[in-house]
Amino acid sequence: MAEEKIPYKIYLSEDEIPKQWYNVRSDMKTKPAPLLNPGTGQPMGYEDLRPVFCDELIKQELDNDTPYIDIPQEIQDFYKMYRPAPLVRAYCLEKALGTPAKIYYKFEGNNTSGSHKLNSAIVQAYYAKQQGLKGVTTETGAGQWGTALSMACAYMGLDCKVYMVKVSYEQKPFRREVMRTYGATVTPSPSMDTEVGRKINEAHPGTTGSLGCAISEAVEVATHNEGYRYVLGSVLNQVLLHQTVIGLEAKAALDKYNVVPDIIIGCAGGGSNLGGLISPFMGEKLRGERDYRIIAVEPASCPSFTRGVYAYDFCDTGMVCPLAKMYTLGSNFIPSANHAGGLRYHGMSPILSQLYDDGYLEAVSVEQTSVFEAAQRFARVEGILPAPESSHAIKVAIDEALKCKETGEEKTILFGLTGTGYFDMVAYGKFNDGEMNDYIPTDEELQKSFATLPKIG
Amino acid sequence: MAEEKIPYKIYLSEDEIPKQWYNVRSDMKTKPAPLLNPGTGQPMGYEDLRPVFCDELIKQELDNDTPYIDIPQEIQDFYKMYRPAPLVRAYCLEKALGTPAKIYYKFEGNNTSGSHKLNSAIVQAYYAKQQGLKGVTTETGAGQWGTALSMACAYMGLDCKVYMVKVSYEQKPFRREVMRTYGATVTPSPSMDTEVGRKINEAHPGTTGSLGCAISEAVEVATHNEGYRYVLGSVLNQVLLHQTVIGLEAKAALDKYNVVPDIIIGCAGGGSNLGGLISPFMGEKLRGERDYRIIAVEPASCPSFTRGVYAYDFCDTGMVCPLAKMYTLGSNFIPSANHAGGLRYHGMSPILSQLYDDGYLEAVSVEQTSVFEAAQRFARVEGILPAPESSHAIKVAIDEALKCKETGEEKTILFGLTGTGYFDMVAYGKFNDGEMNDYIPTDEELQKSFATLPKIG
Repeated sequence: MAEEKIPYKIYLSEDEIPKQWYNVRSDMKTKPAPLLNPGTGQPMGYEDLRPVFCDELIKQELDNDTPYIDIPQEIQDFYKMYRPAPLVRAYCLEKALGTPAKIYYKFEGNNTSGSHKLNSAIVQAYYAKQQGLKGVTTETGAGQWGTALSMACAYMGLDCKVYMVKVSYEQKPFRREVMRTYGATVTPSPSMDTEVGRKINEAHPGTTGSLGCAISEAVEVATHNEGYRYVLGSVLNQVLLHQTVIGLEAKAALDKYNVVPDIIIGCAGGGSNLGGLISPFMGEKLRGERDYRIIAVEPASCPSFTRGVYAYDFCDTGMVCPLAKMYTLGSNFIPSANHAGGLRYHGMSPILSQLYDDGYLEAVSVEQTSVFEAAQRFARVEGILPAPESSHAIKVAIDEALKCKETGEEKTILFGLTGTGYFDMVAYGKFNDGEMNDYIPTDEELQKSFATLPKIG
Repeated sequence: MAEEKIPYKIYLSEDEIPKQWYNVRSDMKTKPAPLLNPGTGQPMGYEDLRPVFCDELIKQELDNDTPYIDIPQEIQDFYKMYRPAPLVRAYCLEKALGTPAKIYYKFEGNNTSGSHKLNSAIVQAYYAKQQGLKGVTTETGAGQWGTALSMACAYMGLDCKVYMVKVSYEQKPFRREVMRTYGATVTPSPSMDTEVGRKINEAHPGTTGSLGCAISEAVEVATHNEGYRYVLGSVLNQVLLHQTVIGLEAKAALDKYNVVPDIIIGCAGGGSNLGGLISPFMGEKLRGERDYRIIAVEPASCPSFTRGVYAYDFCDTGMVCPLAKMYTLGSNFIPSANHAGGLRYHGMSPILSQLYDDGYLEAVSVEQTSVFEAAQRFARVEGILPAPESSHAIKVAIDEALKCKETGEEKTILFGLTGTGYFDMVAYGKFNDGEMNDYIPTDEELQKSFATLPKIG
């Protein structure tokens, strides 16, 4: 059988790294809803967004029509430092599970930032540099995005100011040191350096912060400092666009061996990895060329798809950002303190939200203890210590493979392994010691949080 | 120029992963000196070593003649999970340095153990399993070897008992958690579980341990428990043999593009990476086919090549192991507490020691602050956060490239990038805060340590 020839890892050649990103919006019949001005309720255009975002990135943000967008040569060259990322056939996991399913994963952890975040960080830093800016500001939670952006800024010679959610700043000092090694300034958020930070600290003394707070601070600093703009690692259309290198490479690698996945699985926080992985497959689905089951996996402790509402909401706690229409838990929602790792943003990418609302995408939520069980199982046979975020996808991939074991179906499963868990050993330690808990927000908590939704839209 | 076609990363195909290890001893005119029984002073043979080591590994340890040794199919399959490792052309570093030198590095960090150690760990676990053993014992310092062995044992279904130098156990809790995630038992050394541990604790109350102590404990546990053997991650001939996959792959990748290195550089602690990287090149040099400058780089705080003596010495503090002839600082030598990372063993591989003594190999020592400067410089342009150990090689590669800048010579430099620094952020933090110090042992300290050398040999 030709099947037998599939290697453990399918590497494309450097020439085969995508030279264009694929814009899935071009194939969507219902486009994602536009960003709105929170004051006027009107859609925000290019000029409205210029104080916050880099010019070229705004063009990408607003472009719902161009199917393919060229990747600048300098970014193509940078991609060569760590791409193509391997598509791995999980032979050892299949054997350990005793499943007839064929499991593939696209591994994005082979770069120092430890995740797929670098794919967009380098692009955003590049356009900031092209625009002649001095630097960029951003927020980071678990720290993968902050690390990636720090690396990208070091490479481009840009200043990088990172507002890191205070609880992560304190619990993940090593993430912080990686960013500092790359020359970034890392400030715990909420800080006393910004107006919005001071307000939040006053209103919630002793708060350990949230992504929403950190975004507000980063945006304020970007808009109040000459030569700075704000950049974001997920949620935005532009980020999903950049992350399509994941899906384009995965699809090219599968195509080489005439492999067509039946099920495609990705973890979903803000949606950057999931959107990037599924885009080219979703394009075929939207155009009616082929059907796939596409599954978003989110933490039960932060279930924006499965328990959120589809509505316009604030992107940040300080309400300084545009409004976005998305599946959201409300901008005040903060996952339980025992939630490990990322995937903690209250909202979901507007692109993915629209696709989910239109029924092109399924979503499931999983509890973290079961996620770490899957992570450990995977690590012991596949050799890679996965990030907690990525392990959400592993959990559901294993579940689907075990269903195949029951039914005898030889389904092909593709999932995104977004990164490594080297900086998550506190959480692994809790799991190893049997001290990890699950927490699912109550309906009452969610209703309280939904009450903060703006009346617009 | 054909030169222009060299990609950023040269990946061999899975078919090109070596199917045999190369035994450099077969080409050495003066063979490395045999292990001696510390009681009798006589060379130790196969039967003498069986209580400590796995049978097949002893055969490899003693085999000075067979040039190529087959890699079992199961290990070849495991290698496919993370090999071939990329050979990277450091275009970005070259540009940043403004050097006409061409710099290549073989990167061994793309696996969860984070280093090249897995190359030998899986082999040792495999032969232990083949022999029907229950498990293996070992020591670990910085934790790379312990992590690699834990992974290998999880894969093979073997019990794994790791004695971790106490200071590392306390300072690197995350390394410990990785090992536990892979199912290993990790004990801080010296412990009270072993006779030798109790003796050392009694003689040196409050000691934070050393590799030499941890080796003694691991050997005692292996020899006192039915179905266990001791395994070691460096120094031994067998380990260097397994690690030749590094050099064989590097050479095959260079050969594809007709690139011949002028200078080959590797960090040297016990010698596992250096020996593996240089072996096939050294073979050509020993056979008079080609000449290379080969440079071992060691920490100034643990300078076994540059300031040690070539003599028979104890491999461990408890003096339970065979004696080995090697460049050594004396088995009581412990590097200064401010020394970060690995490369802290008091002795050096007998193979490399003999090659160094015969003049086939140069050695330099470097201070750790300069090593971290090189690490940061490298990280910012090449994207990889290197391990402190690996950064010793980076430091000297940069030095050599800068010499080329002065002279205008277009030399080709190859160095080994053994792993990543994710678990070394305490040291990076010290460097970032300007609080890192250097320490070089005084002549008096070394003389005191040399006084503990046995009178044999």
